[in-house]
Amino acid sequence: MSNYPYPMLNPPPFMWNTKKEITEPKVHEWIQPLDDQDSAKWTHYDAVILGVPLSRSSISASSASENPEAFRRAWKSFTTYNLDEDLDLSELQVADLGDVREHVTDISICHDNIKEAMKAIQTHHPDSLPIMIGGDHSITAMLIKGYKESHPSERIGILQLDTHFDLRDLTDNGPSNGTPIRNLLESKVINGEDVYNIGLHGFFNARSLKQYADEVGLNYITMKQARKKGIERVIHEALAELETKVDKIYLTVDMDVLDISAGPGAPASTPGGMYIHELLEAVQLVGASNKVCAMDIVCLDPTKDIANATVKTGVHVMLSFLTGYKLRQEL
Amino acid sequence: MSNYPYPMLNPPPFMWNTKKEITEPKVHEWIQPLDDQDSAKWTHYDAVILGVPLSRSSISASSASENPEAFRRAWKSFTTYNLDEDLDLSELQVADLGDVREHVTDISICHDNIKEAMKAIQTHHPDSLPIMIGGDHSITAMLIKGYKESHPSERIGILQLDTHFDLRDLTDNGPSNGTPIRNLLESKVINGEDVYNIGLHGFFNARSLKQYADEVGLNYITMKQARKKGIERVIHEALAELETKVDKIYLTVDMDVLDISAGPGAPASTPGGMYIHELLEAVQLVGASNKVCAMDIVCLDPTKDIANATVKTGVHVMLSFLTGYKLRQEL
Amino acid sequence: MSNYPYPMLNPPPFMWNTKKEITEPKVHEWIQPLDDQDSAKWTHYDAVILGVPLSRSSISASSASENPEAFRRAWKSFTTYNLDEDLDLSELQVADLGDVREHVTDISICHDNIKEAMKAIQTHHPDSLPIMIGGDHSITAMLIKGYKESHPSERIGILQLDTHFDLRDLTDNGPSNGTPIRNLLESKVINGEDVYNIGLHGFFNARSLKQYADEVGLNYITMKQARKKGIERVIHEALAELETKVDKIYLTVDMDVLDISAGPGAPASTPGGMYIHELLEAVQLVGASNKVCAMDIVCLDPTKDIANATVKTGVHVMLSFLTGYKLRQEL
Amino acid sequence: MSNYPYPMLNPPPFMWNTKKEITEPKVHEWIQPLDDQDSAKWTHYDAVILGVPLSRSSISASSASENPEAFRRAWKSFTTYNLDEDLDLSELQVADLGDVREHVTDISICHDNIKEAMKAIQTHHPDSLPIMIGGDHSITAMLIKGYKESHPSERIGILQLDTHFDLRDLTDNGPSNGTPIRNLLESKVINGEDVYNIGLHGFFNARSLKQYADEVGLNYITMKQARKKGIERVIHEALAELETKVDKIYLTVDMDVLDISAGPGAPASTPGGMYIHELLEAVQLVGASNKVCAMDIVCLDPTKDIANATVKTGVHVMLSFLTGYKLRQEL
Amino acid sequence: MSNYPYPMLNPPPFMWNTKKEITEPKVHEWIQPLDDQDSAKWTHYDAVILGVPLSRSSISASSASENPEAFRRAWKSFTTYNLDEDLDLSELQVADLGDVREHVTDISICHDNIKEAMKAIQTHHPDSLPIMIGGDHSITAMLIKGYKESHPSERIGILQLDTHFDLRDLTDNGPSNGTPIRNLLESKVINGEDVYNIGLHGFFNARSLKQYADEVGLNYITMKQARKKGIERVIHEALAELETKVDKIYLTVDMDVLDISAGPGAPASTPGGMYIHELLEAVQLVGASNKVCAMDIVCLDPTKDIANATVKTGVHVMLSFLTGYKLRQEL
Amino acid sequence: MSNYPYPMLNPPPFMWNTKKEITEPKVHEWIQPLDDQDSAKWTHYDAVILGVPLSRSSISASSASENPEAFRRAWKSFTTYNLDEDLDLSELQVADLGDVREHVTDISICHDNIKEAMKAIQTHHPDSLPIMIGGDHSITAMLIKGYKESHPSERIGILQLDTHFDLRDLTDNGPSNGTPIRNLLESKVINGEDVYNIGLHGFFNARSLKQYADEVGLNYITMKQARKKGIERVIHEALAELETKVDKIYLTVDMDVLDISAGPGAPASTPGGMYIHELLEAVQLVGASNKVCAMDIVCLDPTKDIANATVKTGVHVMLSFLTGYKLRQEL
Repeated sequence: MSNYPYPMLNPPPFMWNTKKEITEPKVHEWIQPLDDQDSAKWTHYDAVILGVPLSRSSISASSASENPEAFRRAWKSFTTYNLDEDLDLSELQVADLGDVREHVTDISICHDNIKEAMKAIQTHHPDSLPIMIGGDHSITAMLIKGYKESHPSERIGILQLDTHFDLRDLTDNGPSNGTPIRNLLESKVINGEDVYNIGLHGFFNARSLKQYADEVGLNYITMKQARKKGIERVIHEALAELETKVDKIYLTVDMDVLDISAGPGAPASTPGGMYIHELLEAVQLVGASNKVCAMDIVCLDPTKDIANATVKTGVHVMLSFLTGYKLRQEL
Repeated sequence: MSNYPYPMLNPPPFMWNTKKEITEPKVHEWIQPLDDQDSAKWTHYDAVILGVPLSRSSISASSASENPEAFRRAWKSFTTYNLDEDLDLSELQVADLGDVREHVTDISICHDNIKEAMKAIQTHHPDSLPIMIGGDHSITAMLIKGYKESHPSERIGILQLDTHFDLRDLTDNGPSNGTPIRNLLESKVINGEDVYNIGLHGFFNARSLKQYADEVGLNYITMKQARKKGIERVIHEALAELETKVDKIYLTVDMDVLDISAGPGAPASTPGGMYIHELLEAVQLVGASNKVCAMDIVCLDPTKDIANATVKTGVHVMLSFLTGYKLRQEL
Repeated sequence: MSNYPYPMLNPPPFMWNTKKEITEPKVHEWIQPLDDQDSAKWTHYDAVILGVPLSRSSISASSASENPEAFRRAWKSFTTYNLDEDLDLSELQVADLGDVREHVTDISICHDNIKEAMKAIQTHHPDSLPIMIGGDHSITAMLIKGYKESHPSERIGILQLDTHFDLRDLTDNGPSNGTPIRNLLESKVINGEDVYNIGLHGFFNARSLKQYADEVGLNYITMKQARKKGIERVIHEALAELETKVDKIYLTVDMDVLDISAGPGAPASTPGGMYIHELLEAVQLVGASNKVCAMDIVCLDPTKDIANATVKTGVHVMLSFLTGYKLRQEL
Repeated sequence: MSNYPYPMLNPPPFMWNTKKEITEPKVHEWIQPLDDQDSAKWTHYDAVILGVPLSRSSISASSASENPEAFRRAWKSFTTYNLDEDLDLSELQVADLGDVREHVTDISICHDNIKEAMKAIQTHHPDSLPIMIGGDHSITAMLIKGYKESHPSERIGILQLDTHFDLRDLTDNGPSNGTPIRNLLESKVINGEDVYNIGLHGFFNARSLKQYADEVGLNYITMKQARKKGIERVIHEALAELETKVDKIYLTVDMDVLDISAGPGAPASTPGGMYIHELLEAVQLVGASNKVCAMDIVCLDPTKDIANATVKTGVHVMLSFLTGYKLRQEL
Repeated sequence: MSNYPYPMLNPPPFMWNTKKEITEPKVHEWIQPLDDQDSAKWTHYDAVILGVPLSRSSISASSASENPEAFRRAWKSFTTYNLDEDLDLSELQVADLGDVREHVTDISICHDNIKEAMKAIQTHHPDSLPIMIGGDHSITAMLIKGYKESHPSERIGILQLDTHFDLRDLTDNGPSNGTPIRNLLESKVINGEDVYNIGLHGFFNARSLKQYADEVGLNYITMKQARKKGIERVIHEALAELETKVDKIYLTVDMDVLDISAGPGAPASTPGGMYIHELLEAVQLVGASNKVCAMDIVCLDPTKDIANATVKTGVHVMLSFLTGYKLRQEL
Repeated sequence: MSNYPYPMLNPPPFMWNTKKEITEPKVHEWIQPLDDQDSAKWTHYDAVILGVPLSRSSISASSASENPEAFRRAWKSFTTYNLDEDLDLSELQVADLGDVREHVTDISICHDNIKEAMKAIQTHHPDSLPIMIGGDHSITAMLIKGYKESHPSERIGILQLDTHFDLRDLTDNGPSNGTPIRNLLESKVINGEDVYNIGLHGFFNARSLKQYADEVGLNYITMKQARKKGIERVIHEALAELETKVDKIYLTVDMDVLDISAGPGAPASTPGGMYIHELLEAVQLVGASNKVCAMDIVCLDPTKDIANATVKTGVHVMLSFLTGYKLRQEL
């Protein structure tokens, strides 16, 4: 910045390179966008961030497509240092790859692009942990399919934090946000016994989906049951079982798992859902599993959020997950 | 619908008969309005819903009168299946009787209508569990008086979840929402020892009311004390005592019992109040008591709600109560 | 209602048949849903209302799909009597046909259904004036195509109240809400000279679209220019020209034509746009043209509205249009 | 304040006597509450302010009862000096009398108190101009009845700025906010020909009320018609006619006369209503009539307001009215 | 009030002396403003309230300056009786001293005034417990400096409930709200070992500040760690250590310690923060320590609050603190 | 972008270089940030944008400091093409210089930086039109002082669109947002006769300030008077007078000149203020004056805005001003 002729100014662009307080590295200074220059270098990244701004595939009208941009704005207020664990995420190399390109009126093109994006990540950054910011839950099926096509021999398990089964039939309305797990089961990408759904809620799932879940041997526990048992213990047990069965664990966090008092930006959050400190604890535990291969955060609609609370919680979910990942590396 | 000439349309009226997803029965498809045709049949109902849109009797300006309509809109987003207990409420026969007719400028007419409505329910549907959706808390006195007039020999107990005693003197301002319990005590409908108030809050009740409560032998515990003891245990103990003393238990839920972070639509909710999962647990336990004869939900003002969170919580309270009721039937 | 056993109750369903005040007929009591029984009768209707809840074809994330339901709730607060003209719309026979069925993940099915719905209206109700409640602006192309297929020999003109040209190229992103007029021009359904766009705004249209409009001979005037000339005069002149050229005039009202202070529920409304009284005046004038064959109201997102102001304005637009239509009949 | 031991503090109470900027007298420093000491003195006041916090008589749920308190908070941001006319309202002696005492559950007591309050004002302050801050529109009937009882021989005319006739039948629901003008006509306090209603709106009044208005010879003009003619001219003509017919003119301003974009705190404001600058102009003209004897401002619900815009507009209405009153005095 | 000529009125000023319900003393009737008359008397007060409306010293734009006024309005809805402990705060003599005078463009004058205000309190009311309502956190340094100058020989400890260390370097941007603890340490007013910070949060503090804290021997525990241990136990231990080391304990409550779901009015509140019932418990415990000499509540911006929830929580924090103080007196 | 390895992605940073629609150049693609590379080139710019994020000098608590960032986000939704005039602003070379550096606790440093920034612009870009985005109104005094120091021999006139005089005395509270014009008059930078204030409002200015204005010969007209005369004519007359008297005209737009219905983000906007289309017309006329040397937009607080309406209006003000500037160039 030495050539800049205005000593009394902070030059633009403000979002990416403002260095106001050298002693407090902020997340937006750490997660650097990958650009032409970078791509030439092909340096190693511990993790890569991918925005997936698709929500026209949502059953209910949703603006979750605006969430990747909301995340990037919101993480300006987080430092990279985690005082709880005395650990600094900025020691990880993390790149922001940008957003999957979406088509306005052909959702199948969007879904193809999402799958191809995951395959490209596996090709160009095979050692990086991909973190996907949705978008609605339909993207999870595409992302895992993309991963599976890159690693056809791996057995993939899913740890799902969600209020819903997401096991609706695809024949009526196609691969919407109500269908991703069924999509993966029916296409044989995932086995029922390799899915662990934690946080399901009464009165928001049909009995027929419960029966389907039982038929395919899917593992699940409702939020009410999990709370009685202790979220931490539930997560530990699910991870322990998954780690013995599968090669890789994919974490998908549907933000509607939150209690309705804690998730205004997740319109399907429910009375009696998960509290924020429980969710942060859960994702950190999963991040620390050495079989975790990717995660996504979905169904967060920033236009419905209040005081940016759910967006900030979503960013913290990502950082807590990376905290687990960093703790694992340090072992 | 076979005669409808438009195969590409969903015909109106949308609120009552849209059958979009046959596999996910929603609450609004299950709770059917009673109409002329039905009334001719006089079929049995397990429960009947009654709207009581009166809040001009509230001390503070309130639009709780809008709540019955808000409930009916909100329950469209709930399924009838409770995954936590693996039971389906749609196995219960439930009718929506409509709303008590209110007078604009004569509150005593409103109160009479409310009492008469409860008596009519006891006449026409003696085997049904009435669930009343307020309205402000003044309605509880009228509803229990109506019940008592239909069952003069029964000893009725009250389990009250509330931030307030509702024991104000009627001589100054009449039967407002601050008075229902005192109203019932003074009119000898209820004994003080048969009232159990759980969830009272410091700094929102006068000492004089505490003294009155002590004089009449009313049972109560503050939210802070209840939390230390465990809500579940407190409810169990209150139920156990009530079940030995009275013939019937009436549950009244004042939504202001909620913590202020969880109850934007209950304007009198307080810092340090009950959390949502605690409230849902409590009402389910009460619903399962075989002495429960009716319930009401009051003081929920949907015009002050945020993102419909408190209205949805209120609907869930009703469904959790019915869950308890269903569990009892299954025993 | 004589059999209803509860004299003190207003029975449900509340939205459709509450008769609280016999002397003040409200819009929701007048616009009756068409049901199986009605369809058997095939009575004449002066106008038919069709909901088109599609907005996943919108470039920006939109919940305009929620608008038909919002209209039906909002028109409960309007009477049918227009004091300005001393006429009562309830003398018109108007039916609500319901909503076009939409597919969640295949927008082309949605568009086909919309076109087929208009054709079905032309078949079953050839003498009725159709009023379509969107939805985003992509629906207009489908509705006019449907009309044209039913009346291939008619020359159709468009009077468009809009901030935008809606002339974007379809090759990139398909038939989105930015393209309807171009769609109709390219498919030869409409001639450029038969389109009159009133209310365009600087800084919200590309120069290339202006050049395209000039090439195809489209008629247009910006809001700023129209205000200087007088909206009323501008409408009169456009109608006069259209009436000499075409057989039928289709009115399409994009609610973003409103000034930003008057259209919170039209997210693309602009600083310096049309004021509400000007819009109401304009649509009444168009409704009175004896060549008007249909109208639609689009791009109103009730989830972004504030105090329901834009939804109520939208309903008023519909009623002002019908006022013009009634005035015409009376001549 | 010389005895106050803290030179670095601004002492409480803040609402009434903070003197931050000696050169900018604010409205709250000018309008002094009448207290015991004052009442002993019985000094002359040019005008007296009376709060009428009653809205439980409103047909729709309303919190207009909170408006007097909202006015007193809002007028802190207004100076007393009117630059437009170069006059200073603080040259008028104005006292705030406080609020009419309301009963919680007996609306007839409230109405009696309101009538008695007006009579007391006429007794104690016969030379003062009373300005009443509602509350809902039912109060107007009581206030004018009170005035009439104090001045039985005077012929009183009403200039009403309103979206509605307020001519509903009292037999069904008593003296609600939909009935004040009919109430006054039926009780022979006012003649139909002495009422001038300006600002009525299509689709918000029943035909039967229009017919009633015609039968009693009431004068009225809709907003749409008034705008074409010019509000200023309409007001001048109404005043001219009233001044020749009656002894005293009472101005009642129902804030729902505003356009919906300008009146979020007046829930019944309409699309196409009066703009703020038109309303301010109108009330100033009326205030300048030497026959004006009182005014009220009703149906402003501050809990529904946005950014306090309608409350501030309401305060400005009061100040513009007083401006007219002062201009008259100066002649 | 016997001279007041209007028996049907509640006279103003409403905020301070309305006595609507004699049996329910409210906080605003108990906390009386100190005025000229009072100051002449110099009666004893158990506690004094001081507003510190300064937030232009905040790093982020803040309207915390509006908070003292918001508190005074909000405490009207609290009674003085604490049912949890069966104790009435109105037995304490408490005076509201008003607000520290602030300069608009010279923050150092503001800071001086704040320091001088605390010194004046120590002079005029040496036996009173001062409670300061901020304002931003920069005020704490000034208040403690003022206290120290009045009591130079006392060793003062700080119990801080906060999401942040507030240990930023003063050399860059002066004594902002990020610096108060460092300010006190560097000016030798406080020893590092005498500061106990409870509630710190990962991702909102820089590593460099953690290192500084360690260097100066500051005691701290993150919210996550404190929750695992139990807030109550953590507070007890901190108090026990402080009580053995220091002469006086100053409690500073930064409202951003709250969970983001519970603190909309504390813009820096975080996902995973303290729940309201935990905070109330904590401050009551501290208030009961016989070494507590003062407290402040900071960083509450009422203009960002939702439904006044955080303001009410803040007032409750003050009352819970006074509850502890009263309990201590009763021992 | 040819090296970017992800054909299916839109790479970050999204704010500055996304080229989604080649045919619709958006404002954020046109106004490029000046960076090191650019500064080396020293190319010519027709206009330069400067953010002035200072509002801690505001009398009332303000977050107008957030406005420059809000502008940069909001102008993404504007195209560069002005259809009203058929001209494209992208033919102008415009650079975004960034934001003036602000100090947290020393406002005099902020003010110095602002003055120096204007001087630096005059040095480095003497031929560019500077457009400053505030911040509060105190910045105008500093900006004009900076300009004057660069051009000591020029006589500068001010055209001010404002609800207030901004003539408060500086001796009490320093150079706050209430003082800029007086500051410039007292420091002899501007003559009273060279100030034209248009849009002043009754009840928001003290008589003493009016008297001061008269004494110094300042020219002013209230909004009410200006509306009767016609805003366009008022502006023309003011410009004509200024152009004969001064060398350069500085335009300062205080967004509180807007009507309260049109300016939620300008907290001091008033009932009866300027409508948006009038403001846009006014600034375009001023921009077309060949003596205009700079402009600023102040007192817009985006945190109080609703649906971003005032921010968008502010951006449009800037673009309308540049439209005038471009029209002038084309002559």
